[in-house]
Amino acid sequence: MKVLILGADGYLGWPTCMYFSQRGHEVIGIDNYFRRNASTELDCEALIPAPNLLQRVIIWEETSGKKIKIHIGDVTDYAFLLSIFREYKPDVVIHYAEQPSAPYSMINRDKAAFTLQNNLMTTLNVIYAVKETNPECHIIKLGTMGEYGTPNIDIEEGWLEIEHKGRKDKFLFPRQTGSLYHTTKIQDTDMLWLYVRTWGLRVTDLMQGPVYGLSTDESDLDSRLIPHFHYDEIFGTVLNRFIVQAVAGHPLTVYGKGNQTRGFLNLKDTMQCVYLSAEQPAEHKQLRIFNQLTESFSVNQLAEKVKIVGNRLGYNVEVNSIENPRVEKEDHYYNVNFTGLMELGLQPHFLTDNVMEEMFKVVDRYKDRINRDAFFKGIQWK
Amino acid sequence: MKVLILGADGYLGWPTCMYFSQRGHEVIGIDNYFRRNASTELDCEALIPAPNLLQRVIIWEETSGKKIKIHIGDVTDYAFLLSIFREYKPDVVIHYAEQPSAPYSMINRDKAAFTLQNNLMTTLNVIYAVKETNPECHIIKLGTMGEYGTPNIDIEEGWLEIEHKGRKDKFLFPRQTGSLYHTTKIQDTDMLWLYVRTWGLRVTDLMQGPVYGLSTDESDLDSRLIPHFHYDEIFGTVLNRFIVQAVAGHPLTVYGKGNQTRGFLNLKDTMQCVYLSAEQPAEHKQLRIFNQLTESFSVNQLAEKVKIVGNRLGYNVEVNSIENPRVEKEDHYYNVNFTGLMELGLQPHFLTDNVMEEMFKVVDRYKDRINRDAFFKGIQWK
Repeated sequence: MKVLILGADGYLGWPTCMYFSQRGHEVIGIDNYFRRNASTELDCEALIPAPNLLQRVIIWEETSGKKIKIHIGDVTDYAFLLSIFREYKPDVVIHYAEQPSAPYSMINRDKAAFTLQNNLMTTLNVIYAVKETNPECHIIKLGTMGEYGTPNIDIEEGWLEIEHKGRKDKFLFPRQTGSLYHTTKIQDTDMLWLYVRTWGLRVTDLMQGPVYGLSTDESDLDSRLIPHFHYDEIFGTVLNRFIVQAVAGHPLTVYGKGNQTRGFLNLKDTMQCVYLSAEQPAEHKQLRIFNQLTESFSVNQLAEKVKIVGNRLGYNVEVNSIENPRVEKEDHYYNVNFTGLMELGLQPHFLTDNVMEEMFKVVDRYKDRINRDAFFKGIQWK
Repeated sequence: MKVLILGADGYLGWPTCMYFSQRGHEVIGIDNYFRRNASTELDCEALIPAPNLLQRVIIWEETSGKKIKIHIGDVTDYAFLLSIFREYKPDVVIHYAEQPSAPYSMINRDKAAFTLQNNLMTTLNVIYAVKETNPECHIIKLGTMGEYGTPNIDIEEGWLEIEHKGRKDKFLFPRQTGSLYHTTKIQDTDMLWLYVRTWGLRVTDLMQGPVYGLSTDESDLDSRLIPHFHYDEIFGTVLNRFIVQAVAGHPLTVYGKGNQTRGFLNLKDTMQCVYLSAEQPAEHKQLRIFNQLTESFSVNQLAEKVKIVGNRLGYNVEVNSIENPRVEKEDHYYNVNFTGLMELGLQPHFLTDNVMEEMFKVVDRYKDRINRDAFFKGIQWK
């Protein structure tokens, strides 16, 4: 396959580049370094220093003998994106090129406007570039489990048949999010669904839960290949943040009651899910939606796991409930259906003590670089 | 009330300015002349020549003795919008400042990008300006019945209680549109709902069907006050288009089978609906949704009505089914609940023969200005 990866510098983007490359596919990556620049601006840089993408692909070639092509540019620039599609004619495009942080989208009007503009315009441009150059090209788009929010009914896999007053129809599963970032993902899905129906595009929309981990088989080959690992309030997902807090001797920052429950997955499983989706693409005129998670935990359960493993490793882990800066339900029903990716062949890596211990070990190596100010900046939803 | 009207030059915007002004309210109008400029660019100008807004308010003051304030500017420019909110401190903002045409949004990537960017950024800016200056300010937003599409179940008024596997929750009514324009309206609703829940804003979202007519009590006072009346494929709604086609001796352009059914309302009733919504505002933390229509017709039924009335008036009206340039269901279930605005006091003006005869008479006065090339340009959805 010829695979175009948008957002190739990101936490998921870079390991995805290596994952496909390692398996013999031709990989072209694009990034505009938004996250690097934003995390410098907001003083929340990644834990582990990362060479830039052009340097990374040289290291990758030295390590694996395989080439990845990189173009630095902005997917919101349609002329640029179209030129890439025309030059490479990808079989599949993996669209990660979005502003990925809920707190970032709630900081102020300018950050909200950037999130809205970036996330929707990149998606529209991908749709048009595929239509104009090769409608056969399979679009794989990262959505989020946050699109569904926390409804009081079981969360089905993308769709729901509704019976109302004796009549039936099938709809996108009802969605209601907790931040502007998450809302842009609903908006993306609605756009994709429009153009799937109108133009017959083939799309896989992955409703992904929060990801944890910093290791893939490829990144383990050389420490300079480790993905960007954020542990801060803005770009760090909750388990990654807790482990760095534990190593730093900072109380784990549980927001409010901590009963907020979400579906999680290991970074290695994100690689599998995206790869399986690419190998077994959506049909024409199909918006295929998968719920991308392997198990569910509450925030308190994660904190407890980190505490147990951390204390066993000799850290003195405390858990601290702080006033919730977000507006979200702290007690809610949560039951998710996620069989689609299993049926494609996903072999889950569950969150074992061993997985956490390995994360602790890597983080400990970089503990002098931990910026404690980044753990909690108190970005208020209200 | 102090009323800020965004999109004050539009088909709905200008008569709304006069409607509130006539009833003693202080009106401030904003427009960037998008529609005037776009209709010149695309050779589909309005039937009736209209003075610009600054000239209109002078005519209005001469006619009614009342003042309306106008600022020419772009609602996507946040600094401009914020300065207006700070200067006037409106009690209610009526947000019409959107690209309003489905075909326009499907012409090409640039028009799609403009629609997406304009419609979402204006809405985000209104939300932020209200939050930053006065969260009590009531937002009235024009949505569209097109947000719902044509589901196989009854369309309820904005919300639906869903029972699934023995559990229940209430959701936004499922939505699925037929164009990018309509999709931006779904996206608007999702954003408004997020910030209503997060910040406690008060919002009325009006799911309006296609509007017809070119007369309100205020515009009847002076022909220079008639709203922009479009009859073209891009900006003209179906009944308005059919009547102008009938006067021009052009066959009525029915798309496909013509069984497409929608809810319609008279321009005079739009005025009432918006006014009633402003007088009886939404509560804090409430996204209040009304379905804004008074009766439903299929395209064939409208064509038949126009044919009967037109032939009686001496026109020779033919109906021509042409290949549908849109992607839409031509046979579908359609049953809409719309009691909310009736309960607020709406007195519908139904589509009688007399109403159509009056429209024919006004159109006939301007028949030399009809541009037959504008009736059908064949903007393809595919």
